[in-house]
Parts: sequence; C-alpha cells; structure tokens
Amino acid sequence: MELWYTEKHTEGRGITIKAKGTLYQEKSEYQEMTVLDTEDFGNVMLLDGLVMLTQKDEFVYHEMITHIPLYSHPNPKKVLIIGGGDGGTLREVVRHQSVEKAVLVEIDDVVIETAKKYFPEVAEGFISPKGEVRVEDGIKYIKESNEKFDLIIIDSTDPIGPAVGLFHQEFYQLCYDRLNDGGMLVAQSESPFIPHMQQVIKDMYGNLGNVFPSVNMYLAFIPTYPSGLWSFACASKKYHPVNDFQESAYNSDNLSFKYYNKDVHKAAFVLPNFVRELFEK
Amino acid sequence: MELWYTEKHTEGRGITIKAKGTLYQEKSEYQEMTVLDTEDFGNVMLLDGLVMLTQKDEFVYHEMITHIPLYSHPNPKKVLIIGGGDGGTLREVVRHQSVEKAVLVEIDDVVIETAKKYFPEVAEGFISPKGEVRVEDGIKYIKESNEKFDLIIIDSTDPIGPAVGLFHQEFYQLCYDRLNDGGMLVAQSESPFIPHMQQVIKDMYGNLGNVFPSVNMYLAFIPTYPSGLWSFACASKKYHPVNDFQESAYNSDNLSFKYYNKDVHKAAFVLPNFVRELFEK
Repeated sequence: MELWYTEKHTEGRGITIKAKGTLYQEKSEYQEMTVLDTEDFGNVMLLDGLVMLTQKDEFVYHEMITHIPLYSHPNPKKVLIIGGGDGGTLREVVRHQSVEKAVLVEIDDVVIETAKKYFPEVAEGFISPKGEVRVEDGIKYIKESNEKFDLIIIDSTDPIGPAVGLFHQEFYQLCYDRLNDGGMLVAQSESPFIPHMQQVIKDMYGNLGNVFPSVNMYLAFIPTYPSGLWSFACASKKYHPVNDFQESAYNSDNLSFKYYNKDVHKAAFVLPNFVRELFEK
Repeated sequence: MELWYTEKHTEGRGITIKAKGTLYQEKSEYQEMTVLDTEDFGNVMLLDGLVMLTQKDEFVYHEMITHIPLYSHPNPKKVLIIGGGDGGTLREVVRHQSVEKAVLVEIDDVVIETAKKYFPEVAEGFISPKGEVRVEDGIKYIKESNEKFDLIIIDSTDPIGPAVGLFHQEFYQLCYDRLNDGGMLVAQSESPFIPHMQQVIKDMYGNLGNVFPSVNMYLAFIPTYPSGLWSFACASKKYHPVNDFQESAYNSDNLSFKYYNKDVHKAAFVLPNFVRELFEK
C-alpha cells in the first residue's frame, strides 16, 4: 500500500508527500491536529489539513522569523510570541544572549502537547528558564496585559479560523502599544507566488503600514509551504532591519545556523520585481 | 472528471497540478514530449514526464540564467546556448544591446517546434535576426566548431538521458576552450534541497572547479521545479559575477524584468548555510 498526503495550495495545484502512516489525530477545540510519519520530511504536523511544520525543513521558518528581527534591534530583552505553539520560534529566541524573557501565548494546548511528544527537537524551547508559556487567546492577552516588549513575533497559521484576527489593523495597533520605543513586530506573511495570498499580502502590509512607520518584507525558501517561496513582514518603530543589522551581537552570540547568516539577513530583503509590484498596485 | 498530473521529485514527495487536458503528446528520437493545459500554470511542457517550463513561471528561469552572466561581463558579444530549445533563454539574451550573435544548439527539433506552437511568447527569441539555430548535438558542435564565444549557457534537462554528457568535466573543458579571454559559462545546477540532487551539485561544481578559476552558485525561486529552490552555476575565466556587475550596461539597456533586478543580481549569490555546506564536505 502507498499512502500519499496531498495538500492543495489552490484549486489547481498542490504538494504530495508519501506517508508511512498517521502517528496522531485529534480534533481540538480550535482545529484538527494530525501528525504524519513520512520518509522525506520526518514527522509532519498538519492543522486543518495544512502543513504547519516538518522535521526536515522547520529550521528555515524558525530561524528566519526570529534571527532577522533579533539582530536588527540593538538590545532585545523581552520578546512576545503570539502562536508558535510548536516551540520552534521560542527555541531560537532564547538562544540570544540579550533575551531575558520570552512569553509565548498559544491558544491551543493541543499544539504544545503534540509538539512535545512528536517534535521534541522543536519543542525544546519549552525547557528554557527564559520562557513563559500561556495557553490563551493572543488577542485577549495583548488587550489585557500591561507588559511591554521589544519584539512581538506573530507565528500564526493562515488568516482563516483562529488566526484571522491576527491580520487586522486593530490587532497591529494593540501590538504597537505593547512595544517599547524602538520595538519591532514580525509576522509570517504568506507566499507572493500564490494568487489568493497576494491579496492577503496587500491587505496585511497596508494594515501594518497604517500603524508602523516602517514595514519591510523579507523572503525565505520553505519547500513544504505553498510555492516554496515564503514571506515575512518586519514592522518597526525605529530600527531598520538591514541598515541597523547588529553585527557585534551577531559575532558575540556566535550561534550556529542551518539557514540564516549575516549575508542572508540582508539578501532576504531583496525582492524580485513581481514581488515588489505587489506593493505598487 | 478531475485530471491531476503528479511529478514525483523523489520517491516520497512531488508536485501535483490540475490539468484541463493534454494538448500534445509525442515521442521524439530523444525523449517523450507532453504539453498540458492547466488552470494554474497555463501550458506546461513536460519532457519524459518532468516539468520543463510553464507559461506562468518560466520568466524566473529564463531571466536568471541569462541576465546574471550577461551583466557580469563587460562586453558579451557572442553567446552560445546549449539546449534551450524552447527559445526562452534566446529571447532574453537577444534583448541585450551588446549581444551581436547568439547560437542555439538544440538536439531535439521537437522541442523547438512544440515551443513555437504552444509557447509562442517563449519561442519569440527565434524571430530575432541575432539568433542562429542549429539542430544538433551540443557536445558534437562544441568539439567541431572553431567559433569562440563570450558566454556559454547550458540550458539543459537533468543529468539523465540526452543531457548526461553536459555535466562532465570533459565537456566543461571543451566549453572553456571555446570561450574568449574573460569568457563565462552558466549552467542550471539542480536543487540544493533535494537529496539526490545534492550529489549532482557536488560533482558538477567539482568538475567545473577543475576547469575554471572561479565558480559561484546562485539561487532563484521556481515554484514548479523540485522544492521550489533552484540553483545555477556561474563559472568564469576572469570576471566575478558580483564584483564585476555591469551597472552602466544595466542602466543603458534599461530592460523591464519580472524577476531580475540589480539587487537580485547580487542577493542571488548569497547562500543559506545548508547550501554553503554542500561545498565544504
């Protein structure tokens, strides 16, 4: 028997991955969780039938959503992660010497527990004493908390289901208000190659631009995400992610990476023309 | 009825594209040609069941295999294209003011005729008076010709079937001998994300490095190619593709591009760590 999982990225295209079987399936309060055992990508986490992460290529997403902003801010001490229940973003954040505290607010406990069991190398961020994990609605947390942060990372699913409010201007304003002077916000921002995501990108960058003085897109290759070309939005009160690259912190931390490096930091902000044009129309 | 074309990129993963139907199928002397009519990618050309180009994303490959070397050489007058029978590479080459003559040597006439019929906007390179099209074996041509070139572009299929000899050191040496002083060679070099292609990359760059004093890899996003991350090898006798970027020719030509631009020219040579490591082991 051959078992193939196929994710349609549009009505007319998709990715297909051979699976040895399913390791776990559960319907949580918020979404349907599945873990597949695959030859090519190791364990694969699906939420509502869409690939969230695989053991084989999660390093790209988690390194790129964290180290770019953390090495653009001169002294990021307090970090807030909205979503990111698999722990991979937290794992990368706490590696930075400057980071004293990282609060992770995940709405769905099933994501956290599943990651701990089936993705232990991703979930290892949870064992850091710098981390504080809260199982609650990120929007509610932002509204009610008085804590201030140097960096907010929105590590969300697509703008459907529980994550839809994380793409609204009201939410970005709440984030802005919770950021210290010089604070930054980073969010995953879909694929510029997928037609229905292009509209999401235009709306999202429009919303961010109404709140933050500086918003820049950067790119990374993530083979299991739609089209393989993925984007991130970096919104900032003050520091510019390319011009204010923190070379001394980068050298002093001296971390090892599988994707990120100081040249990638800058090159990721260079956009092909068809991507630039998304912002012109 | 739903018709889905699925290309396995390894034994365990692939891409799947919904097709309205097949427009053309033929077994040539060298390979099996298929043209699919698809919603997402327009017409899609398959050779031996593998995607060669689609109307929707061919611009990435054709811009990146041509403009990077052409804007790294101070005066590229004569260009040789080995393969490239769809005409897309020729289309981009002849746009450059400096180029006086471009010889295209394609082994399989069926590719040229199919492109002219089903990909007219790709095949438009064939109408340029600068182009000379020869239907013959590229290796034989290189061996027997005395013409010299400033740039040789190897626009080949994967190293199986008719293209296998195009990845050998002997062939690279023949190319080197046909290049003028300061000449360059560019070749598509597979995906660094696909395990069995990583060995091809190591062998290919090893072979090129035994012949050329300088060999550099650059990257582009091509969603219909395996993993979406594609690489190209730029081998050079003298000029460095980043340091010798020809800004004045770039400004003077003032061409419009969908992917390439002068920042992409440089950023494409920045490699993520896992790609750099392919060359270290």
